[in-house]
Formats: sequence, C-alpha cells, structure tokens
Amino acid sequence: MDAMRRPGTTFDVKSGMFVVLVRPEHPENIGLVARNMKNTGFIHLRLVGVNDLDQKTFQTAIHSQDILKSAQIYSRLEEATADFCVVFAATAKRRKNFTVLSLEDAVERLYQYPKSTKIGLLFGNERTGLTSEELKHSNFRFVLPQSTEQPSYNLASAVLLTLYTISIRAPRTFLTTWQEKPLPRKKQEECIKMILHKLEKDGFLHKTNKSHVTEMIYDVFGRLSMTERDRRLLLALFSRGMSESKELER
Amino acid sequence: MDAMRRPGTTFDVKSGMFVVLVRPEHPENIGLVARNMKNTGFIHLRLVGVNDLDQKTFQTAIHSQDILKSAQIYSRLEEATADFCVVFAATAKRRKNFTVLSLEDAVERLYQYPKSTKIGLLFGNERTGLTSEELKHSNFRFVLPQSTEQPSYNLASAVLLTLYTISIRAPRTFLTTWQEKPLPRKKQEECIKMILHKLEKDGFLHKTNKSHVTEMIYDVFGRLSMTERDRRLLLALFSRGMSESKELER
Repeated sequence: MDAMRRPGTTFDVKSGMFVVLVRPEHPENIGLVARNMKNTGFIHLRLVGVNDLDQKTFQTAIHSQDILKSAQIYSRLEEATADFCVVFAATAKRRKNFTVLSLEDAVERLYQYPKSTKIGLLFGNERTGLTSEELKHSNFRFVLPQSTEQPSYNLASAVLLTLYTISIRAPRTFLTTWQEKPLPRKKQEECIKMILHKLEKDGFLHKTNKSHVTEMIYDVFGRLSMTERDRRLLLALFSRGMSESKELER
Repeated sequence: MDAMRRPGTTFDVKSGMFVVLVRPEHPENIGLVARNMKNTGFIHLRLVGVNDLDQKTFQTAIHSQDILKSAQIYSRLEEATADFCVVFAATAKRRKNFTVLSLEDAVERLYQYPKSTKIGLLFGNERTGLTSEELKHSNFRFVLPQSTEQPSYNLASAVLLTLYTISIRAPRTFLTTWQEKPLPRKKQEECIKMILHKLEKDGFLHKTNKSHVTEMIYDVFGRLSMTERDRRLLLALFSRGMSESKELER
C-alpha cells in the first residue's frame, strides 16, 4: 500500500498522464487541482476554454505554481486530446449513450496500456460537467463512488480522488497485457468520422436517429482504444458495401 | 469495491464517527469539508476554536448546509473529544514523541472496534497542523501518503482522503475482534494524568525530562485505547510504591 513511495514505476507512469480541465469556472479550483496534482505526483496540466491564469489561481496553488506555469492552454477540447492515445473522462451522471466504468475499473484498465502511452484524464465544468459533445473525445467514462446523488464532488476533490486512486493502485510489477499502443485520439476520431460518414451515406444514420446513434458509435469504437490494425480493419469493413461484406462471411 | 453503495454496515459505522476541525482558519475550508463529508456519507462535524459560521462557509458547502447547521462548536479540544472512545489525529509531520500510523493501518484499526464505538477524527489548523499539546487528546496519529514533502494536503483534501479511505475499506462482514469498548477519552485522560502525577511525585518526572516524557506517556497509554479493566490495572500499578510492585513479582 506504499505505492506512492516507490518512485521507479509510478513516476514513469505519471509522466505519461495528463489532467485536462474543461471550461473550469473558478480560478481557485484550478489552483487546488495543481496542489492536489503536486501532492500525488502528477505533473502535466492542460486547460481548455480558459483565459490567462489570474492571481486567485496562484493563491490556492501553494508550492505548486510550477504546475500552473507549465500548464498548456487550448481553446478547443479536440486539440487538447489530439496526441493522447487513451482518454478517460469523469462523469457524475449516468449517460444515455455512453457506457460508464467505476473509478476502480477505469484505473485497472489504465494500467493495462504500455508504459509510454499518453493518457488524458478529463474533468468538466463545475456546474455542467462534461457535455455529450465533449465526451465524444474520450475512450472511456468513469464515475467516482459517492454516498448520495447530490452534491457531486467538488472539481478539485474529483481530481484528487482519481489521482490518489491511480497512485495507490499502481502495480508493483509492470507486466503489460496489451502490447499494442492505441493510436492518437486524432486518428481514432478521424476513423470514427469516416464510419459515421459511411453510415449516413448508406441511410443507416438519418435525421431522427442521428445524434443518438452517433454518440453510441463514439462509445463503442472509443472503447476499442483503436490500434493501427483495428483502424485498417474498420475502414475496410465500412468502406465495403453490404453485399461485399456478406461475401466475406462465406 | 462498492462499499459506499451498501448502506447497511457503512451507515452504522459512519454514524459513530465524528470529524473534528481544530482551529480551522479559512471559512471556505469548513464548507468544503462539509461537502466532502456529504459526498462520503459522514454526518457529524465538531469545530474547535471557531466563532460563528459565516456566509463564506455556507457558500462552499453546496447541498451540505445541514451538516454545518448541526455542527457542534467547542472552545477547548478536550471538551470536543471527551465522549469519544478512540481518537485518531491526522499529522503531516513526523513527531518526536508520538508514534504515527499510515492511513491504511489507521483505517484497519478503526474497524476493529465495536460498531457502537464513538470515534473522533482530528484535523488541525491549515498552517500549523495539530500541536503536540493537541495530539495528547488522541489515541493514534496517522499520516496520508503523498508524493512530496511540500506542500502538505489542503485541509479539505486531507479530510476527503481519510473519509474516502474509511468508506472504501469498510469490511463486508462486521466481525468484531476487540469486544471491549474503550473508555471515553475524558476517563482515559484522567487516568493518564494520575499516572503522570504519581511519576512526578516519585521523582521519575523532573524539570528536564518532563515535557518530553509526558508526551511519550500520552503516546503509549493512548495507544492502549484503555478499557475499564486496563484503567483499574494501571491505577493499581501506579498507586503502589516500587517495593510493593516488586512483591507482586514473587
């Protein structure tokens, strides 16, 4: 249970993990997140839809200003996630078209990727959380266990519990079970968009089901954590006509 | 790992647990602690050395105002802990004369007491933590695992990680290993004071070692989580003269 005192494996892992705050509202929370990152040994912070960091942010980031200073700011979420290979998004609510893992399951899954995998951890706005549109840029959603439905965890608290669980669950040995590293999100999303485009052209996606089915497609193909081989297969499958794919079955 | 969704055992346990904030400075932190308590299913909050709760406190206690409204305010720590049977105190620093457990060990120990045991969880001032004088009112000290020495966890974060760990470590079955409930802290401390008094009268405690040995006595006899039987034995042991106790050995 002393995972955080073994710098060897955990440092490597954490250096590939990025905390991404999407449209955070309160500067104090950004500072508290930086402090919680420092406490648990995480380094990389990305901010989406935030103007310059103000004084209040630095006030709550006690002994953690370095994390704020090196934080990267993006105007659009998909730019912030483009180079990640796997993206986990925190959600406090059930989602109609997106499956949601428990925190423990998400952390277990996270440790199955090769060490060098760039992993993003997304946290949404304090009031709204992540929108369905924003969830499309994630491979997996996870929920923190809590006692009551209301209130949800405060933003900095949600980040802290996630990072703390990642830290104490760090495997002692690092036996990788998934040898293939997933593609960068940008490539994964390009593939998903091609599939959607094809489905629309074929009339499978139409006006009444489009938004609903689109989210489910993002969910299913996101959870694949698509590798280059998966991508080639999927593109082959979906670029064929229905009749041709039936031929394959024979 | 779904401990927080099993209301049966965990609720009972949590209803016997009290969060005690000692001289908290920032009203926002008190409100955040209330919210973190709500999230993890804890109810009882005691505050020491705090004047009335102000507006800022209620602002951060989103959906958790009930916890603040029923919070009990004390001017002295020993009044706040008098009716607890076991007291755990959070510390971020090593202590010269007090032993310190890991968070995991403290939580394991906490679940060994009978369900109905009143347990106090002490957290000190944001800047100073708990003083040695304040630690005397605890049975056990514990430290949260963290990545670096500086900064320590923010007050609300320290409370959150403690309550969260208590929640996810809740035993499925509740097999009690220590059948005897410890005495209320007030009685434990009366007994420790009688021992100290005797040691001083005997010249064992003197000017140069007094403060140092006193803390170690509090540590050792605190960790006993003294029962009525322990108390009787200790009083018998220490009220006897040295010669008499040697007689006993024969």
